[in-house]
Amino acid sequence: MSKRILIVGGVAGGASVAARIRRLDEDAEIVMFERGPHVSFSNCALPYHLSGDIADSNRLVLMNPEKFDDQYKIEARTNSEVVKINRDKNTITVKNVQSGEEYEEAYDKLVLSPGANPIVPPLEGVNSDHVFTVRNVVDIEKLNTHVQKEHIEEIAVIGGGFIGIEVAENLAHAGKKVSLVEAQDQVMAPFDNDMVQILHKEMMDKGINLVLSDGIDKVEENAIVLQSGKKVGAQAVVMAIGVRPETALAKDAGLEIGVTGGIKVNHNYATNDKDIYAVGDAIEVHHKITGQKTRLALAGPAQRQARAAADHIYGIPHRNTGVIGSSAIKVFDLNAASTGINEKTAKAANIDYDYVYVIPTDKVGIMPGSNVMHFKLLFEVPTGKILGAQAIGKGNVDKRIDVIATMIMMNGTLEDLKELELVYSPVYGTAKDVVNFAGLVGLNILNGQVKQVKVSDIRDLVESDAYIIDARERKEYEAGHLVNAKNVPLSEFRNRLEEIPTDRPVYIHCRSGQRSYNVVASLNNMGYDNVYNVSGSFLGVSLYEYFTDQVKERNPIVTKYNFK
Amino acid sequence: MSKRILIVGGVAGGASVAARIRRLDEDAEIVMFERGPHVSFSNCALPYHLSGDIADSNRLVLMNPEKFDDQYKIEARTNSEVVKINRDKNTITVKNVQSGEEYEEAYDKLVLSPGANPIVPPLEGVNSDHVFTVRNVVDIEKLNTHVQKEHIEEIAVIGGGFIGIEVAENLAHAGKKVSLVEAQDQVMAPFDNDMVQILHKEMMDKGINLVLSDGIDKVEENAIVLQSGKKVGAQAVVMAIGVRPETALAKDAGLEIGVTGGIKVNHNYATNDKDIYAVGDAIEVHHKITGQKTRLALAGPAQRQARAAADHIYGIPHRNTGVIGSSAIKVFDLNAASTGINEKTAKAANIDYDYVYVIPTDKVGIMPGSNVMHFKLLFEVPTGKILGAQAIGKGNVDKRIDVIATMIMMNGTLEDLKELELVYSPVYGTAKDVVNFAGLVGLNILNGQVKQVKVSDIRDLVESDAYIIDARERKEYEAGHLVNAKNVPLSEFRNRLEEIPTDRPVYIHCRSGQRSYNVVASLNNMGYDNVYNVSGSFLGVSLYEYFTDQVKERNPIVTKYNFK
Repeated sequence: MSKRILIVGGVAGGASVAARIRRLDEDAEIVMFERGPHVSFSNCALPYHLSGDIADSNRLVLMNPEKFDDQYKIEARTNSEVVKINRDKNTITVKNVQSGEEYEEAYDKLVLSPGANPIVPPLEGVNSDHVFTVRNVVDIEKLNTHVQKEHIEEIAVIGGGFIGIEVAENLAHAGKKVSLVEAQDQVMAPFDNDMVQILHKEMMDKGINLVLSDGIDKVEENAIVLQSGKKVGAQAVVMAIGVRPETALAKDAGLEIGVTGGIKVNHNYATNDKDIYAVGDAIEVHHKITGQKTRLALAGPAQRQARAAADHIYGIPHRNTGVIGSSAIKVFDLNAASTGINEKTAKAANIDYDYVYVIPTDKVGIMPGSNVMHFKLLFEVPTGKILGAQAIGKGNVDKRIDVIATMIMMNGTLEDLKELELVYSPVYGTAKDVVNFAGLVGLNILNGQVKQVKVSDIRDLVESDAYIIDARERKEYEAGHLVNAKNVPLSEFRNRLEEIPTDRPVYIHCRSGQRSYNVVASLNNMGYDNVYNVSGSFLGVSLYEYFTDQVKERNPIVTKYNFK
Repeated sequence: MSKRILIVGGVAGGASVAARIRRLDEDAEIVMFERGPHVSFSNCALPYHLSGDIADSNRLVLMNPEKFDDQYKIEARTNSEVVKINRDKNTITVKNVQSGEEYEEAYDKLVLSPGANPIVPPLEGVNSDHVFTVRNVVDIEKLNTHVQKEHIEEIAVIGGGFIGIEVAENLAHAGKKVSLVEAQDQVMAPFDNDMVQILHKEMMDKGINLVLSDGIDKVEENAIVLQSGKKVGAQAVVMAIGVRPETALAKDAGLEIGVTGGIKVNHNYATNDKDIYAVGDAIEVHHKITGQKTRLALAGPAQRQARAAADHIYGIPHRNTGVIGSSAIKVFDLNAASTGINEKTAKAANIDYDYVYVIPTDKVGIMPGSNVMHFKLLFEVPTGKILGAQAIGKGNVDKRIDVIATMIMMNGTLEDLKELELVYSPVYGTAKDVVNFAGLVGLNILNGQVKQVKVSDIRDLVESDAYIIDARERKEYEAGHLVNAKNVPLSEFRNRLEEIPTDRPVYIHCRSGQRSYNVVASLNNMGYDNVYNVSGSFLGVSLYEYFTDQVKERNPIVTKYNFK
């Protein structure tokens, strides 16, 4: 007898389960239930409707029920909300959201792919007609129509995660005056505080009114009021604080919920009911690096979970490798990507780590379109195992992070990164690629050949009048430098050794850290034993200090910033 | 006492050895000898001077002797040819190429980085003033000056490797009429015959007069004469047939030469003389996949060899991982990259392999700038170990090949590729990345779930009137199809099963292979056991047949090509 498989929710998780099952079993009866009118759409592409990059919102809809039926013999029932799971009789109760009618459907196997809901805190005014969320095609059409029909000029986006930033950018491209409000002191949680300042600067440079460390308190007709009491003009408000897994259906049915608030699943994405599976944003997953449970609202892992669940229904085993959390975002002219864990997560998981922050060029410097890339790599101490990376720049950061993600997947170390043979042409990169370079610097640190200080330590060093050497050439120094740095260029230091003290720590930087590293290596060889390279160097310090200086209105520690 | 280290040759190998040694030993006396006037230049960027991408040829010179001295206390002696190694007394004989004077220099350690020389066969007219090679800055300046001063209109480039194609493209960008002549039946040896047709088409589309399977016989004043007797108009000729490792110095000194004709080195890049090391294009290296010796003229490996040799001189051990041969090239609007081995190499090395040829989109289809990517993946049978990949498209093929290179380095398998968690944003890719997709298809083949035929087999199948099903929708079929294919769309096949024979093989294709795979899977589930998916599908067949059709003037097997 043929299997009857019901699926709650479409998009990345549900539709992938359905398609995979059809390929495994021509006879299975497959029904997919979706509360909204669209069963398959590109949720990651939604914000690009606001700028007109995807002008026709119909294009966001990837598959309709007719196509599912024609091509895959899958029934996609839209406007159909699953309101109850009746585990005792293996049925679900479905509500037709248009007619209000309720009915039962029996299943052999049930797959839950309900996703996650935008969080909307219960604030004054939050239910007004000019407050929006962005979860599906209907949402983005509503927002876009409102902005255009009402000729909205000022928009406030609440939340500096992926959706918040993409919505803000696309609205800015549409000519709107956009404020981005984030309660934390930084946007984009996957990035550490030192790296993220680059994104802060980019958003400010591109005209976004960026408000950090301040939350929304209430929504008025023409403005929002922040917790600090400040008002931000806005005739439309987009709530993008975060998402909450949709677990109500599972909870009501007595399915186990995990420690993170997501639906608990086993190795095969089965819940504690052997006939019920769960995949996608609503579940909790195993983090490969920390070994802890976590939640992850990403399309790639959802698709893999979907396939694994379908396979398990048909007895095909699956290797669960856990998740590492790879992601990427375009922020105006910058690309930003990350994978694995950052410093915050490493500390929280009590993982002994160290890191590299380098700023090489993304392709051969003399080629047109060459730019610097800010690249941070975390590795485990003492094993050198690669834990994570963050990259930001105008160039192809996604490529470098994908290589690191592959290394993490394969349990690679700094030694592996050093020897990695990647493609090279001056059009695409450098013979010693960014990731090779980071691996080499990491080994120097791990092997104790170089000691380093962070860009975030430089203000304290400057203010405590530490001995700082700027190893750039004289002209570069004159164009802007740390207020108390002494200029001893790489090309001169061997003749000016008497200026370098041996009785106190010496901190050395150049532009990107490469020249200062050579000075540090030579001084170490000469017997100096208290010499530090400034990780991130002058470029890093300029970027790190610039934004906080703007916000905090404190005394700059550089005479002139340099971002190139 | 300080070590005296002499280095023969600069650029990627020699300069890297010198810089690394300085970082390891502040006291070492380091002298680098270079026959030409420039000790450090970007050889991979040379062709880009011809188009004006790098307008000032001085920019190709990365470091001069003054800078080497100022910054690294390294003596770079230009115009100095090392003519003899006197192993009995640990000295070299150096000739000042300007004065002709010869002198000896003593070494504790000697590092050879002589590189490889462009091959110029002894043809009639080949020594004329209008015949050029491209090895260094002087060469490219000579070629460029000649082309500009003499107002050259027609140029023949001999050889379809990296340098030949890059020179041809940059000259075409400069408005010249360029012929590219290649004796083999394809350009770019790292690519298999099926993939490389895409590059052939691109060059033809962009106005290059591409001549394959024909060699140069002699050079005349206004033309070259080919072995076929054909004449090709050319007032300038660039010889880019290939390179020969510069081993004369080593040979004369009695250093061992390997089976490939390169200098033989051990694990640490030492020759059979423990005081003499060799690195770069002149040596032979160990191929990680075939286990055989090979030669590789690539900058990245040269730099790693240089570092390893320097380290060994100072007692620092090194992990020799062999080479895999990753490379990339821009060919007009297309990017092409490859890593590991291709079908030819696998066959020659007697490695049991199979492969995947898929044509997914490089980013979410509805995003601006989305394009198809042709992607071929080789894996070992029966292990599923990844052996190599080739990718061609308008998008970021280098990223996908770097991921595969990382997988090869880490001994990854199709299973690893399937689970790989890469970054995703619709701006950069798709949730199921090209490489994940290739891994999945590869597993289907390895597990025997799908049988496939190659695009190169289709002509025979068409001509023998095999049963071929085109699973695209009717409109697509009408816009161009295989002459004898029957149109049974994915959306109709379940109702037209009586048309699908069970007593003979059935070959199914669609546009890119994804829809036909679903038909194949369903038919397999229904008990059909002689059904084949056409790997590469209609897009692949169109591209494969187009170029050979142009050349061979045979009857097309498609009614109309489709390349998108």
